[in-house]
Amino acid sequence: MRALLFDGKQIRFDADHVEPVLASGEALIRPLLAGVCSTDIEICRGYMGFTGVLGHEFVGVVEQVADDCTDRQKQLVGQRVVGGINCVCGQCDMCISGLSTHCRNRTVLGIAGRDGCFADRFVLPTNNLYAVPDGIDNDVAVFTEPVAAACAARQQLHIEGKPYITVLGDGRLGLLVAQVMAKLNASVRVIGKHPEKLERCAKWGIQHRLLDDIALRQDQDVVVDCTSNSDGLAIAMKMVRPRGKILLKTTVAEPQPVDLSPLVIDEIQVIGSRCGNMADGLAILANGEVDVISLISKRLRLESGVEAVRQAAGGALKVLLEFD
Amino acid sequence: MRALLFDGKQIRFDADHVEPVLASGEALIRPLLAGVCSTDIEICRGYMGFTGVLGHEFVGVVEQVADDCTDRQKQLVGQRVVGGINCVCGQCDMCISGLSTHCRNRTVLGIAGRDGCFADRFVLPTNNLYAVPDGIDNDVAVFTEPVAAACAARQQLHIEGKPYITVLGDGRLGLLVAQVMAKLNASVRVIGKHPEKLERCAKWGIQHRLLDDIALRQDQDVVVDCTSNSDGLAIAMKMVRPRGKILLKTTVAEPQPVDLSPLVIDEIQVIGSRCGNMADGLAILANGEVDVISLISKRLRLESGVEAVRQAAGGALKVLLEFD
Repeated sequence: MRALLFDGKQIRFDADHVEPVLASGEALIRPLLAGVCSTDIEICRGYMGFTGVLGHEFVGVVEQVADDCTDRQKQLVGQRVVGGINCVCGQCDMCISGLSTHCRNRTVLGIAGRDGCFADRFVLPTNNLYAVPDGIDNDVAVFTEPVAAACAARQQLHIEGKPYITVLGDGRLGLLVAQVMAKLNASVRVIGKHPEKLERCAKWGIQHRLLDDIALRQDQDVVVDCTSNSDGLAIAMKMVRPRGKILLKTTVAEPQPVDLSPLVIDEIQVIGSRCGNMADGLAILANGEVDVISLISKRLRLESGVEAVRQAAGGALKVLLEFD
Repeated sequence: MRALLFDGKQIRFDADHVEPVLASGEALIRPLLAGVCSTDIEICRGYMGFTGVLGHEFVGVVEQVADDCTDRQKQLVGQRVVGGINCVCGQCDMCISGLSTHCRNRTVLGIAGRDGCFADRFVLPTNNLYAVPDGIDNDVAVFTEPVAAACAARQQLHIEGKPYITVLGDGRLGLLVAQVMAKLNASVRVIGKHPEKLERCAKWGIQHRLLDDIALRQDQDVVVDCTSNSDGLAIAMKMVRPRGKILLKTTVAEPQPVDLSPLVIDEIQVIGSRCGNMADGLAILANGEVDVISLISKRLRLESGVEAVRQAAGGALKVLLEFD
C-alpha cells in the first residue's frame, strides 16, 4: 500500500509499504481525507523521536474489524468515522481516574508507537471511533480532531466575567481556536503576522491585528499560544496581565532559552493543552459553530505528501491529503 | 548610616551611606533584624537589574512618620513592625481590581526602584506596615514575609481530595513551604539534596528523601519548585502527574533552555507564585504553626553583610543580619 513516512532522517513516500495488522479490538480504516498538522511538521524535525507512518487527522471508512469485536463494534464496518488518536490500556492509574488521554501505556496515532493515517490503510481501536453524521461532509469531518483540541482548550480556561482573550498565532490552529473561543462570553482577538491569514477573521466578526501593530501591555486576561513557535511563550508573557492565564498549545522539537521569571513575578498561570474529546468536536462541527472550509488552502494526493508537509511548514493553512 | 549595597557590579558594605528621605505617607524604620533571601542573591547576579540598598525581610521599629500622616498612622511611631514589600499607587487597574501586589507603578523594597532594609534606616509607606504582637519574638517576626509568601502559594493551589504534594528543594524557602503545605489535607514530602537540611523535617513529621534516592515517576498531584535553580522546573515536570500542578517559586537571573513540551503533552498547569499577605504570615507565626527558629543557621552583623550573603549563597539556611 501507499504510505507517507518519517524514517528518522527524512520524510518520504513509500509506494509499497507493508500492510497494517489488525490487533484485538481494532478496526482497519481506509482514509478518505487527512489533514497535515504542525505536530507532523515537528515530528519531521525530531519531535517525540517518532518514526513510521505520519498523520493523525482523518475521516475514513471502516473496512474491517478484528474477529474478537462485539456485534456492536462490528456494525462500524462500512461506516464513515473519525477517531481519537490516543490508544489506551484502560487499566493504569490515569485511565482509571478518567484521564485516559494520559494513559501511561498509550500509543498515539502517527505520533508515538503507532503508525498514522497517511496511508491507504491503518488501524485504530474500535473504541476510538466515532461515526460521522451524514450532514457532515468529509471536508468538515477531517477537522474533528483539531476542533476537539480547541474545544478542550476552551474548557480548561474556567472563565469568569467577560475576559479579554488573545489568540496568538494566525495559523491553522490559531484560527480554529479563535472561532471556538469567540463563542465564550469574552472579547476575543487574534494576533498574527500574516495579513492574508488574519483577514479570514473579518467574516467571522473576530477582531484581529498584526503583531507589529500592537503594543504589548500585559493587559489580556488570557493568551492562547498557538504560534507553534518557540518564541510564542515569551510574547504571551508580555501580553498577559498579572495573575492571568496562558494556554500553551505550542510544542516544538528544539527547546530555546526562555526567561520564566515573569511567570513568578506576575504570578501567571500556564496551562498546557493537548487533546480534546472527539464527540465534542463532532458536535461543534454538526452545529456549524466554526467555519473550517475557509481554512483549507491546498489539496494534494498522498503521492505528493512530501510536498504537502513542505507547504504546511511553509505557511499554508490546512493542507489536505486525498487518497483516490 | 551603614548600608549593604549592590552597585550593579558587586555587593559592598558602605559605612557612610546617604540617609533615606521620608516621602508622603511613609514611615522611617530602624531594623532590628533582617533576613537574607535567595532573591537578594539573584539580585547580586543581575536579577531585576536592581542597584541600591539590598534587603526586604525585616522586623523593625518605626522611628518617625511623614508629617502628612493621619493620627492613626502616627500611632505607629515606636511600634515594632513588619512590612509588605510592594509599594503601590492605589490607582492603576491592578490596584483597583484588588491585585495591588501587581501594581503597574509599584516599587519593591530592595528589589525594584526602592532601597531595601539592609541599612540603619529605610522607608516604607505606613500602609505597608503591620504591628507585631508582643508574643512574637524578633527571631520569629523576621520570617513574616517568606511565611506570607508560602501561605499565598498554599492558597493558589485550590486543592481537592488528599493530594500528593512534593516540595522540591530543601533550602530556606522549601522548608518553610513544606511546613505550611503540611497543614493541608495532603500527603507532603520534601525532596532535596542535603541530608543535614532535610533532617529538620523529621521533627516536624514531614516525609523527606534525597533526590538521588527516588524515582521520578510523574505521580505527584502537585510539585512546588523551591529550588532557586534553573533546572528545578525540568525535574518538577518529571515528578508531576499528567494534569497536575507545578507551583513555581524559583526566579533566577540567567535563563536556561528548557523543553516545555511536557507541559503541553501532559497538560500540566504551572502557577507562578511570588508574594503573600503579611497579615496571613503574622497569623501563622502567632499560632506557632511553623517552626522558623530551626531554620536560622547564622547571625552576622550588618558590617559583615557581604559575608552573610556569601554564606546564604553557599548553602546556609536562613542567615540573619543584626544591627546593634
